[in-house]
Amino acid sequence: MKNKSITSRNEDFAKWYTDVVMAAKLADYSSVKGCVILEPNGNALWEKMKETLDRMFKQTGHENVYMPVLIPESLLKKEGELIEGFAPECAWVTKGGSSDLDEKLAFRPTSETLFSDYYSKKVKSYRDLPKLYNQWANVIRWEKETRPFLRTREFLWQEGHTIHETEKEAMEETLRMLNVYKTFFIDYLAIPVISGKKTEKEKFAGAESTYTIEALMYNGVALQSATSHYFGQKFAKAYNIKFLSREEKWEYVYQTSWGATTRMIGALIMVHSDENGLVLPPKIAPKQVAIIPIGKDEEIVKIADNYSKILNQSNIVSYVDNTERSPGFKFAEAEVNGIPVRLEVGMRDLEAGKITLARRDTGEKIQIDKDCDIVKAVNELMDDIQNNLLQKATIRRDELTFVCKTLDEVDRQINKQPGFIKAEWCGCQECELKLKEYRGIKSRCILEDDPISFGKCVVCGRPSKFSVMWGIQY
Amino acid sequence: MKNKSITSRNEDFAKWYTDVVMAAKLADYSSVKGCVILEPNGNALWEKMKETLDRMFKQTGHENVYMPVLIPESLLKKEGELIEGFAPECAWVTKGGSSDLDEKLAFRPTSETLFSDYYSKKVKSYRDLPKLYNQWANVIRWEKETRPFLRTREFLWQEGHTIHETEKEAMEETLRMLNVYKTFFIDYLAIPVISGKKTEKEKFAGAESTYTIEALMYNGVALQSATSHYFGQKFAKAYNIKFLSREEKWEYVYQTSWGATTRMIGALIMVHSDENGLVLPPKIAPKQVAIIPIGKDEEIVKIADNYSKILNQSNIVSYVDNTERSPGFKFAEAEVNGIPVRLEVGMRDLEAGKITLARRDTGEKIQIDKDCDIVKAVNELMDDIQNNLLQKATIRRDELTFVCKTLDEVDRQINKQPGFIKAEWCGCQECELKLKEYRGIKSRCILEDDPISFGKCVVCGRPSKFSVMWGIQY
Repeated sequence: MKNKSITSRNEDFAKWYTDVVMAAKLADYSSVKGCVILEPNGNALWEKMKETLDRMFKQTGHENVYMPVLIPESLLKKEGELIEGFAPECAWVTKGGSSDLDEKLAFRPTSETLFSDYYSKKVKSYRDLPKLYNQWANVIRWEKETRPFLRTREFLWQEGHTIHETEKEAMEETLRMLNVYKTFFIDYLAIPVISGKKTEKEKFAGAESTYTIEALMYNGVALQSATSHYFGQKFAKAYNIKFLSREEKWEYVYQTSWGATTRMIGALIMVHSDENGLVLPPKIAPKQVAIIPIGKDEEIVKIADNYSKILNQSNIVSYVDNTERSPGFKFAEAEVNGIPVRLEVGMRDLEAGKITLARRDTGEKIQIDKDCDIVKAVNELMDDIQNNLLQKATIRRDELTFVCKTLDEVDRQINKQPGFIKAEWCGCQECELKLKEYRGIKSRCILEDDPISFGKCVVCGRPSKFSVMWGIQY
Repeated sequence: MKNKSITSRNEDFAKWYTDVVMAAKLADYSSVKGCVILEPNGNALWEKMKETLDRMFKQTGHENVYMPVLIPESLLKKEGELIEGFAPECAWVTKGGSSDLDEKLAFRPTSETLFSDYYSKKVKSYRDLPKLYNQWANVIRWEKETRPFLRTREFLWQEGHTIHETEKEAMEETLRMLNVYKTFFIDYLAIPVISGKKTEKEKFAGAESTYTIEALMYNGVALQSATSHYFGQKFAKAYNIKFLSREEKWEYVYQTSWGATTRMIGALIMVHSDENGLVLPPKIAPKQVAIIPIGKDEEIVKIADNYSKILNQSNIVSYVDNTERSPGFKFAEAEVNGIPVRLEVGMRDLEAGKITLARRDTGEKIQIDKDCDIVKAVNELMDDIQNNLLQKATIRRDELTFVCKTLDEVDRQINKQPGFIKAEWCGCQECELKLKEYRGIKSRCILEDDPISFGKCVVCGRPSKFSVMWGIQY
């Protein structure tokens, strides 16, 4: 039975997306243009992502710090490419109280400048290296068109900023963190991603190279999901971050940065959710089991509470819905909110010695013995849901990945069904730009481990240098 | 042996404070005027406070949300007293990208306006009440004079915003959250606080009443440490937050807000720390035990690692300092950073079947059997440190609390030794303002449970209505 508050996914994907966001109470529009409110369900999901990633960052040796939110224009301007890239998107504070400021201050669009400035004062010797810092923060980019989670003027993110003694170490860090993101997407969000290097045109302003993980949404549109940048010594030179090396020479540090944002919530929705609302992988769901007593019998409520207690003691997050509403209403609410498992406790079942588990991903109901090991049963079911979601998403992603050898093929494919377009490329920007004429296709990443096989550029037909994944993007 | 990088506390308290902040690497100045950088140690302390308070908020039924950081001027202006109170302190965004904005946007100084605006759209019936929301966020108040943690232009905090069906419920919430803060200060920060209602003059802009917890620093200066506000229906009327009551009438909600900030780190420093740097109560210390192997013997390093493993498994956060520096250097570093317990593992001790525990609060060293139950020994020591810190701070606070009956007594006391001044008051603002002439004394709070005994106002000598705590403030 379809949830009536949600537009059909195949009918109008954009409207379906917004309906899911609203129906699952993840976010709502605010009176501030381009900014949304993270409601309790959306905020809890972000907290869970944060907690998981933060643990992974700490396990790889990183520490958290917090830098000021405002950046003086002069400081921002020290590295030319960065300011050029971000100036059109900056929000500027020009007044403090009733006075005009002498120098305007940018609301941070990203914090390379502040970290670099700080490092330049702190680092003196190779003994001070590496510095492996991260911060969780809000940023602003003054976007014209916005959509909850995917693109908003203010968003929440983390930004890692590290400095190293050698190029090798910095490059290793860049790829290590790309890999942390990849693991997080696959193991926790159950989202298969491809990874690789961005082209010169698509890389981050100021970076020597940018690495990315890219996910494919249900409708075949690509989403850049997290990025990791290698800066070489660019910022070190602009901000004068020098250290006395082991050879007692003054050297510039090698630097990286890497970030992931609330946009990941958008990815979760557009990969897993369905006609009935949100679907969440159990490993990232803030609430994992909804226990619904059927009827108001005191005995039933007591049994429901007891199951909840047992589950919570084993670190499975469950809650009992004791509100004054019909079971049907409660089922629908747990469903639209994406709770992975529903546990129904009803008199008829109990008399037969049973309880019922329902899984959100397939809708399947399973009757189990009321005295069974409930922790084991729920854990097994959650593992199965987690695996099933990753598998389904991988199949969909593979079905929507198309190899094209000519522009004609690209044209036909993108108009029939968008998806990842795998095509070879000569490496010149003219050819890259040419593809934009086909519904705005951009390069997603260079598939570095993928050998050239066809040998010809999809645009110009000259010898190809790279195997590249292309796609329409959010 | 005194740490030489730290000014003596009795010589220059303000300089001592800054020296402790810097030496313990809690925060550093930034290139952004009035804003500091939270370095790893300071940020970890904030994370620990956040985690503890967040658990207490969730246990009392609250959920986290996140509101936009920018507030349109027209929205901010809807409640007259709030804008009047905050306008002189707002930072204003007037440009987005290269365009001037039609309406300027305030960087949130506090978020009553956004929560009220949101609630007005969401709440329809008494069934939607209460809403018990909190957010963790950065705020800006454009201060002229700043000092790390105590007063900075940008700071981090949490702000709870709740709405209720009845006056009684909202007032209960206001006092419940005041009590949560009080418990947190006493049980975790080991800081004794007094609590009570603010006078009309000192209450929050827009509140019907403000409740506060007030701590006394080592030097006798008071610090407002957290506040809880009862708004009645003021914002409800300004922002039109109405609901259909149980009697099917449209009613305005009753509202509260409550907040605590990174300023709490300042309180920790100024209450517990000493000539050798930071002192932290074990229950709030991000790192609780520093294990220091004396000598490079492999066997010793192995034993040190093993103690660390055992402690960490029992949720005692320990680390082994294996860096290439002398034991004396490592001792001093653990000390200046406020690690509550130091565990020394050395060959001479081991040969005698011993290891050494040193406590940060008293400097005392205790030899214990190397094969004893280390978890039990450390837990007992930490309990003792926690209790000792609270006790010492309570004795100091009591020693620095003075009862004054006349302005002459106030004058003499405040010039001899500042502290909490307990004095009776007639309730008129003229008398309250008169006290400001004595080194800026302000009312801290009305001691509601404290009976009038002397019967005369400390200023005018007329009959007193309130027993009030006064003091110089940060």
